[in-house]
Amino acid sequence: MPEVIPEDSVGLVTPSSIDFQGPLALDCGSTLTDYSITYETYGELNAARSNAVLICHALSSHHHAAGYHSMDDRKPGWWDTCIGPGKAIDTNRFHVVCSNNIGGCHGSTGPASINPATGQPYGKTFPDIVVKDWVRSQALLADALNIDRWAAVVGGSLGGMQALQWSIDYPERVAHAAVIAAAPRLSAQNIAFNEVARHAILSDPDFHDGNYYQHNVVPERGLRLARMLGHITYLSDDSMHSKFGRELQAGSPTTGYDMEFQVESYLRYQGKKFVSEFDANTYVLMTKTLDHFDPAAAYNNDLSAALAQASAHFLVIAFTSDWRFSPARSREIVRALLDNNKEVVYGHVEANEGHDAFLMKIPYYMDIFSAYMNRVASEVEPA
Amino acid sequence: MPEVIPEDSVGLVTPSSIDFQGPLALDCGSTLTDYSITYETYGELNAARSNAVLICHALSSHHHAAGYHSMDDRKPGWWDTCIGPGKAIDTNRFHVVCSNNIGGCHGSTGPASINPATGQPYGKTFPDIVVKDWVRSQALLADALNIDRWAAVVGGSLGGMQALQWSIDYPERVAHAAVIAAAPRLSAQNIAFNEVARHAILSDPDFHDGNYYQHNVVPERGLRLARMLGHITYLSDDSMHSKFGRELQAGSPTTGYDMEFQVESYLRYQGKKFVSEFDANTYVLMTKTLDHFDPAAAYNNDLSAALAQASAHFLVIAFTSDWRFSPARSREIVRALLDNNKEVVYGHVEANEGHDAFLMKIPYYMDIFSAYMNRVASEVEPA
Repeated sequence: MPEVIPEDSVGLVTPSSIDFQGPLALDCGSTLTDYSITYETYGELNAARSNAVLICHALSSHHHAAGYHSMDDRKPGWWDTCIGPGKAIDTNRFHVVCSNNIGGCHGSTGPASINPATGQPYGKTFPDIVVKDWVRSQALLADALNIDRWAAVVGGSLGGMQALQWSIDYPERVAHAAVIAAAPRLSAQNIAFNEVARHAILSDPDFHDGNYYQHNVVPERGLRLARMLGHITYLSDDSMHSKFGRELQAGSPTTGYDMEFQVESYLRYQGKKFVSEFDANTYVLMTKTLDHFDPAAAYNNDLSAALAQASAHFLVIAFTSDWRFSPARSREIVRALLDNNKEVVYGHVEANEGHDAFLMKIPYYMDIFSAYMNRVASEVEPA
Repeated sequence: MPEVIPEDSVGLVTPSSIDFQGPLALDCGSTLTDYSITYETYGELNAARSNAVLICHALSSHHHAAGYHSMDDRKPGWWDTCIGPGKAIDTNRFHVVCSNNIGGCHGSTGPASINPATGQPYGKTFPDIVVKDWVRSQALLADALNIDRWAAVVGGSLGGMQALQWSIDYPERVAHAAVIAAAPRLSAQNIAFNEVARHAILSDPDFHDGNYYQHNVVPERGLRLARMLGHITYLSDDSMHSKFGRELQAGSPTTGYDMEFQVESYLRYQGKKFVSEFDANTYVLMTKTLDHFDPAAAYNNDLSAALAQASAHFLVIAFTSDWRFSPARSREIVRALLDNNKEVVYGHVEANEGHDAFLMKIPYYMDIFSAYMNRVASEVEPA
C-alpha cells in the first residue's frame, strides 16, 4: 500500500470499458459479437488529439499499466517504472492508452466471458486469436476514442510484437513504434516452453477440456506449473544466482520431498499467486497467439518485405541477458528495417535481469527510452 | 532391431546383479540393508585386473550402456557411440563396467523396491541419496568384482559429476577421471528447472505422496511433463531449430487446443515414452541428488581445496551449445585442477546439439576422447 502516492505516479486510476456492437472479424474466419474492451488512460489528450500513446501488454498482463486502483494496492500498474509524470512515457506530455487484449481475463471479452449464443462461458470455444486481431480490435478502440493516429505504439515482449504488427497493418496510424525485448517470431525452443506450459494446463484433471467454470474448479496445478516455468524463462541464470544462489530455505528439512532451495520457494509463490489472478484458458490462448506470431510468413518468410509498408519510425531495445528473446532476435528486426531504409534507433542494453529487464528501471534503458519519447513528444507539441 | 549386430558393437549383453548384505551407510545417516546393484560389463578383464573402466550414468539412465539385450532391440545401450571394439572406450582393450545407481529403477535397489522392514515399496521413504553414496556403493561393487583400481572412471552430465566425486573420495582407486558435459554444482536456474519437474510429479493426483504403487496407478501426467521440460534443456535452440524449426504437424488443425508444431509432437512423444520406462520417485530422488551435488561445499566453497586430494589425471570435455552445463562450468573444474597442478586435458568441442552432444558421434569429440583413452589403455598394457 502506498501511504502517499509518489509524485511521479499517475495516481489513482479507474479502468473504463467500451461495449462494441460486433461483429469483430477475426483472422481465423470467426467473428466476435458484443465484445468489450477494458482500458485505462493516463494524461490529457491534447486539442489536436495527436499526443496519444498506445501501450500493448505482454503475455500475462492487462490494461493496468500505471498508477493505483486504490490506496490499498500494494503495487502500482505493471509498467509504472516507465509511465508517469516525468518518466520515459511522460504523462505530462502524452495521453496514454492501455487496453486488455481480446481473449484476456481482466475485463475484455475472453474465454471466461459468457458466449451470447449459448449463455455459457466460451471456454475452449473462444475463437483463435492472432496478433493482427488484437491490432484490429485496438484500431476500433482508437476509432471509438477519436484517435486517428498514435504518436507512438509501444510494447515489451509480446506487446513489442503487437507494436510491430501495428506498424505493418496500419502504417498511416502509427507515427512511432517502440519494440522492446521482442522477436520477429518465436524459435522452436520458445514454442517448446509454451507447449510444456500448455500441456501442464491441458492435462490437469481440473481443466475439464476448458469447461472448468461449469465444474466450479480451476486447473490450479497446471496453471501454477505453467507460471513457474514461465518465470524461469523471464529471469537470467545470473539474476537467479544473485537473487537466490543455491541458498537453502531457512529451517528447510534436507530429507524427503519438501522444498529446500530458495529458488523453489520463489517459483512456488509466483505460481500460486498467478492462479488467483489469471484464467487458464486465456493462458493457453495467449501462448498460442505468441507461437503463431510471424509477420514474415505472409511474405515468403521475408521480414524485410513484411516491413516494407510500415511508415513509422522505430525504437528497438534488447537486453544482453534476455535469453528468451535475445538481442540477436531484435537485430533481425533492426536489419529488416534497415533493408527498407526505415529510421530506427537500436538500444542494446547491458542488463543482468533477463527478459524481465524490460520492466525495470535500468538507467541506460531509461535514458534511451526517455530520449526517444522526448523526440516523439516534441513532434506533437506546438513549437 | 539390428538385423546384423554391427562389427563395432559389443554385441548381445546380459545384465548381472549382486545382492549385497548391508548395511550401506548413507550420507543422510540412514542405512540400506539387503540392497542390489545391477550392472553390465563389456570386454575382458586382464590378468593384472588393471584395465577396468567404470561408466557412470546420467540422470534418467541405467547400466545398459552398450550393445543389445536381444536381437529385437531397436536401439543399443545409451553410450554405444563411445563403447565398443575400436571405439573411444575400446572394449578390445578395456573391461568396462556400468552399474545402475542406487535409487534407480532399472534393477538396483530404489524407491520401487520392497522395503524389507515393511514388506511394501519404499516410495518416498527411500532414503535421500547423494553422489557420494553412489560412489561408495560402486566402491563396494568394485570390491565384489575384485577391482582395486579403475583405469578410468568416466561419465557425462550427472555421470561426469560422479566421476569427479570418485576422484575426490577414492583417489587411490582412480587412475583417470573423464568428466564430460558436467558442472561442479548446479546453478539456481538448473535447480529451478528440476524444481518445476518435481512439482509436476508431486502435484499429480496420481502421485499419492509417492505411494502410487499401492494404488496401481502411475503419475503419468507429472512424469511426462518433467521429461518434456528436461528435453528442452538437453537440446540447444539451434538444434531444435534444425530438427523442427517452426514446422506445423502434417494435417494439423490450426484451431482449438490441439497440437500444431512438430516440436510439440516430439516433446509429447518423448514424454509418453519416458513414462513407460521410468519411475517417478526415482526421478524426484535423482533430481534432488543432482541439485545437492556440490563437492566444494565441505571445503568452504573452494573447489580447488576439494580437488586437492585427487590424484587422478583428468579429461574434461564441454560442448559450445550446452546451455545446461556450459563450457564456462567445465572451465571452473579445469581451473580448480590447475590450481592444484593436476594433469588435465580440456576439450572444448564446437557442437550444435546442446547438452545431448555428449551422447553423439561428433568427430572432434571422438578424436579427443579416443586419444585420451588410448593413453589410458597404453598405461595398463604390457609394453
